[in-house]
Amino acid sequence: MRSLADYRQIVGDDVIHSICLKARNLYGKHVLHLNSTYQGGGVAEMLVSLLPLMNDTGLDAGWRILHGHPDFFTITKKFHNALQGDAVNLTPIKKRLYVQANEDFSVYTHVDHDCVIIHDPQPLPLIMFYKKRQPWVWRCHIDLSSPNAELWEYLKHFIIRYDAVVISNQAYRKDDLPVEQRVVYPAIDPLAPKNIKLSEKDVTKYLKKFDVPTDKPFITQVSRFDKHKDPSGAIRIFKKVRDNVDCRLVLCGSMATDDPEALQIYETLARKARHEIEAGDVVLTTLENDILVNVLQETAAVILQKSKKEGFGLAVTEALWKGKAVVASRVGGIPLQLEDGVNGFLLEPDDEDGFADRLVKVLEDPSLAGELGAHGRETVREKFLITRLVADHLDLLNDLLT
Amino acid sequence: MRSLADYRQIVGDDVIHSICLKARNLYGKHVLHLNSTYQGGGVAEMLVSLLPLMNDTGLDAGWRILHGHPDFFTITKKFHNALQGDAVNLTPIKKRLYVQANEDFSVYTHVDHDCVIIHDPQPLPLIMFYKKRQPWVWRCHIDLSSPNAELWEYLKHFIIRYDAVVISNQAYRKDDLPVEQRVVYPAIDPLAPKNIKLSEKDVTKYLKKFDVPTDKPFITQVSRFDKHKDPSGAIRIFKKVRDNVDCRLVLCGSMATDDPEALQIYETLARKARHEIEAGDVVLTTLENDILVNVLQETAAVILQKSKKEGFGLAVTEALWKGKAVVASRVGGIPLQLEDGVNGFLLEPDDEDGFADRLVKVLEDPSLAGELGAHGRETVREKFLITRLVADHLDLLNDLLT
Repeated sequence: MRSLADYRQIVGDDVIHSICLKARNLYGKHVLHLNSTYQGGGVAEMLVSLLPLMNDTGLDAGWRILHGHPDFFTITKKFHNALQGDAVNLTPIKKRLYVQANEDFSVYTHVDHDCVIIHDPQPLPLIMFYKKRQPWVWRCHIDLSSPNAELWEYLKHFIIRYDAVVISNQAYRKDDLPVEQRVVYPAIDPLAPKNIKLSEKDVTKYLKKFDVPTDKPFITQVSRFDKHKDPSGAIRIFKKVRDNVDCRLVLCGSMATDDPEALQIYETLARKARHEIEAGDVVLTTLENDILVNVLQETAAVILQKSKKEGFGLAVTEALWKGKAVVASRVGGIPLQLEDGVNGFLLEPDDEDGFADRLVKVLEDPSLAGELGAHGRETVREKFLITRLVADHLDLLNDLLT
Repeated sequence: MRSLADYRQIVGDDVIHSICLKARNLYGKHVLHLNSTYQGGGVAEMLVSLLPLMNDTGLDAGWRILHGHPDFFTITKKFHNALQGDAVNLTPIKKRLYVQANEDFSVYTHVDHDCVIIHDPQPLPLIMFYKKRQPWVWRCHIDLSSPNAELWEYLKHFIIRYDAVVISNQAYRKDDLPVEQRVVYPAIDPLAPKNIKLSEKDVTKYLKKFDVPTDKPFITQVSRFDKHKDPSGAIRIFKKVRDNVDCRLVLCGSMATDDPEALQIYETLARKARHEIEAGDVVLTTLENDILVNVLQETAAVILQKSKKEGFGLAVTEALWKGKAVVASRVGGIPLQLEDGVNGFLLEPDDEDGFADRLVKVLEDPSLAGELGAHGRETVREKFLITRLVADHLDLLNDLLT
């Protein structure tokens, strides 16, 4: 378990001390974070790092997980996609199962906290099943810029009961919501296994263990096998790059267990890129291993993020922190992190020639790569580390509770 | 959500009223149940039914889940097997990861309850990380009759800090434990989808949906694909039975996601029984569907439970409740439920000829099947329903808290 003092060398003593001061009116306050998975995905990752640090400030921060049957998660996955604009068939049965799982959970989940922070849509209706005695916050990690209208109207039924909504991007603000909305950027933990500086020995060991050849420079994309992450687009772009520079593409993505579509997307991809995979030019890995992700980002010549949608894009943050040049789509939260030409390159998602051009540029010019990367690391240090997220949570709690 | 009154028709008003009386000194007491999975396995199933009823009595019963990385669950699965007698290589790293997951969880899990009930070995060390302010109970659902000695010695380090240990069988009592030990039999919920009486229409629909032919009588065994459940033995016995009676064997078992061995066992089985499977004589199903389990027990001509080990054997209880004749091994908790010749037949696990003989007997004599089954249903009504489990928990809490 890490403590705030462990981050002194990274963010400086002033930052740590100012966090301690922010907690002064919150000692002993009991705050509950509630989401729907302990494992997999950016939300769980952030909470794993956030919770011990919140407790280290002097308040009591608890974390619980909403329980649901597989049917419930199938429905909430559809809701997740629809909040990002997909169509959804919003039947009475779906609504009933969604609400029922929350009601069932409330029966054996007693809430006597000073504040409740609900993450994402799965536990959103939970607020209906308690006598409200404290502020409730809905922390939405999803891109809300163009939600399916019918679903949004339905979810507002629950959202209007909340005291505040926290979103990841000013652009996700909803004008039709009477609730106070505030923007809190997500963050990464520089001391987590995924981001910590590894020894050269460990890097070499992992590359060998996972059969990643290093005789040519490689491009890394880290993302789930999800249509919104466009892994096929990444492969098309790679083929264009390889016409100019001899290199490899490594696609690294976990198969989230709550994502029934991932396996299908992976298999289609593996079939389409069979020749490149057999030749060793494209490497697909689905291992759930944070240190492998770290190594593949750390060792990459350049990072690609060819997403069509991104709530925020924590994989970009991780790559920037490792001092890597990043070539990415101008979607979701990515432009909050990347300034075109300063710490990476931004492109329209369908500009595949543009992507290839920038990747070639970085691959051919290590000094450019180094310069972009150095800026990227400072961007993250300033804005996107877990210590800033702790401070933002304390600000939120001070506003709500004191 | 079910309430106690829903069970009136099944257990009678006296039983329900006596449960209400037992809660009189416990109103408002806050009890915490803590285990390591919401889904899959008998423990989670019991808690799903138990928790709402505990809350219905007037006390506040909460339920939380220990969070752990996949490495943690790999280790605790080995511990589970070793508590049932397997060898285990108890390295310092394994011990450290086991304890660390508990310590990490304790940081964001605040315990201010009047009593804590810890289920099985995964969260056992949690007690080390709190200032003890209330009685803690270790509820062990595993067959402890011959645990690996080294592991048992290690786990006692945590167990001796508990106020009481609850086991499922008098035979699991440990003489070397200074802690009070009490026996509480597990139970099934007659109103859960797995056990509720289905309409004939639903039964027919499910058999059709899952392609289970009904032109011949069939034998059902419900159990995980686990070596201790001996599915290969079940197939060998079936071949002997089929020499005498034309019938089928249906093996129905979920692939628990926390069980890395299940897939391998399933595949070996499918390969070995390829001919029988292709001929439709043996049906293997791995679907996670409680109603399918219900239908396969309800429709079976006879139930087989060829386990080599069983903590208690809830699948036997479920079958008995459906009025089925059960032919099962004399292991673990099964003899607590089955009396040979009265409500089923008990055999030594290696007496495969004996198993075949009893199965043939029941298949050839429907009136014998009916008689055994009727006795079985009464055994369960009297001893193994969820209402009795609620009463036992209230007795335990009265002893500890009042």
